[in-house]
Amino acid sequence: MAVFPFKMRVYYEETDRMGVAYYANYFIWYERARTELLLSNDFPYSRMEEQGFFLPLRDASCRYFLPVTYEDEIVVHTWISKHEGVRVQFRYAVRNEQNVLVATGETIHVLTGRDGKPCRPTKELKMFLLHVVEENKRVPEK
Amino acid sequence: MAVFPFKMRVYYEETDRMGVAYYANYFIWYERARTELLLSNDFPYSRMEEQGFFLPLRDASCRYFLPVTYEDEIVVHTWISKHEGVRVQFRYAVRNEQNVLVATGETIHVLTGRDGKPCRPTKELKMFLLHVVEENKRVPEK
Amino acid sequence: MAVFPFKMRVYYEETDRMGVAYYANYFIWYERARTELLLSNDFPYSRMEEQGFFLPLRDASCRYFLPVTYEDEIVVHTWISKHEGVRVQFRYAVRNEQNVLVATGETIHVLTGRDGKPCRPTKELKMFLLHVVEENKRVPEK
Amino acid sequence: MAVFPFKMRVYYEETDRMGVAYYANYFIWYERARTELLLSNDFPYSRMEEQGFFLPLRDASCRYFLPVTYEDEIVVHTWISKHEGVRVQFRYAVRNEQNVLVATGETIHVLTGRDGKPCRPTKELKMFLLHVVEENKRVPEK
Repeated sequence: MAVFPFKMRVYYEETDRMGVAYYANYFIWYERARTELLLSNDFPYSRMEEQGFFLPLRDASCRYFLPVTYEDEIVVHTWISKHEGVRVQFRYAVRNEQNVLVATGETIHVLTGRDGKPCRPTKELKMFLLHVVEENKRVPEK
Repeated sequence: MAVFPFKMRVYYEETDRMGVAYYANYFIWYERARTELLLSNDFPYSRMEEQGFFLPLRDASCRYFLPVTYEDEIVVHTWISKHEGVRVQFRYAVRNEQNVLVATGETIHVLTGRDGKPCRPTKELKMFLLHVVEENKRVPEK
Repeated sequence: MAVFPFKMRVYYEETDRMGVAYYANYFIWYERARTELLLSNDFPYSRMEEQGFFLPLRDASCRYFLPVTYEDEIVVHTWISKHEGVRVQFRYAVRNEQNVLVATGETIHVLTGRDGKPCRPTKELKMFLLHVVEENKRVPEK
Repeated sequence: MAVFPFKMRVYYEETDRMGVAYYANYFIWYERARTELLLSNDFPYSRMEEQGFFLPLRDASCRYFLPVTYEDEIVVHTWISKHEGVRVQFRYAVRNEQNVLVATGETIHVLTGRDGKPCRPTKELKMFLLHVVEENKRVPEK
């Protein structure tokens, strides 16, 4: 899998009166890309939740280079950049139709149980996460 | 209580590239107003949920008369217009700073239990709903 | 074209603490479907705007039959059900992965110019709208 | 002014199926707080826009300590932490009803003209920004 590309379109709802996509939406796009990355690995996040694991946020950041607007098709490239203990770190690179980098982002999650307290992953989950991180090392970062 | 006025401001996030508040936001405002109406009656919706009652939507509609935009202060006037069996109907009238009607709305909810199936209200809940409906009859509709 | 199917997924952001997609999101989905319907007809809404035409909302409504939740794939079926003078009416039918109808909706728009005042469509726009309405008559409603 | 407190409530719409406020909403709250900070200084952002100045985002980040949920009242404390050349930096501290810090954030904006290109502030705008930064130095950071 390595870096997972998720193609999506910007809709009217996401624009603001400056005429471009509002800044908080990028974090919503990052979540969509996380969801699709996990689904594409046959590891749906909903299944993690059924097994009692959650990935709430510890940190989120985004750097904005160029605006995107209504009807634009963008690709969110996503990868798991680190996994240590209970921490899982995703990185994101958003490219426009001309393949120009328009934004980058990072989210750091803590693996918790149903009680919201940090908890170690199951063996299956740990192996999956490490596998994805390993895969990513083989490709140069975006 | 009768008609409950909830004052709020329109923020940048809610505008779109037409320069005005995006149409789906009005339904979000209606929910905020429902929440505040119930809180103001010392009947928080969260308490209903704790007691195992939910008010999912059956119908929602909005009519738009005039746009509102960034930094505008608006008032959402809300009342419970009907309560019969498991149905609860709210109505909304949104007014701008000049007290001009800019939108009206209606939402119809079905009272359900935790299983999502329609269920009769407790006596306390029923009396509360009927009381609010009665109160509303004393004032002319917006 | 007739009825235009737009497939999309429900993401975490769209769920609420009842565990299902929040009701206002359906109106956002309807807008996405409108955007894609127009794009699929090589008649992008952004081009209409460049030519000075806008389609602000006059009325919006939604009826909810069944909830949808995180990771669900749904299809929004959209068609232009009426076009008379400056009014354009879209209808929507949302189906889940089992092809069960989960919601229906309707939006009524008024064609306006840059000044926000109703205005007659150009010949090109009028022919496009009538063509789409005609196409829709050939298929039974959802 | 120094640190500007903006009190707000968390609504149903903002929760997700984990039962707490979804992470992207914090950035929306930060924008609301920026808007209110400027309004409270009699320096509405809409006026800046009318004069041809915009503050698009360059960077945004948030650290999450504790969740908040439906009906919670929170206070977003906001201040302008730096202003150099065309850059303006805001910081945020979110506290819950028990006055416990639940999140902190930072946004870095670039002052631009209508063309989206960085531009120097007017004398009035520069003096306002420096005044606010100075004010903030007098109070210890949250």
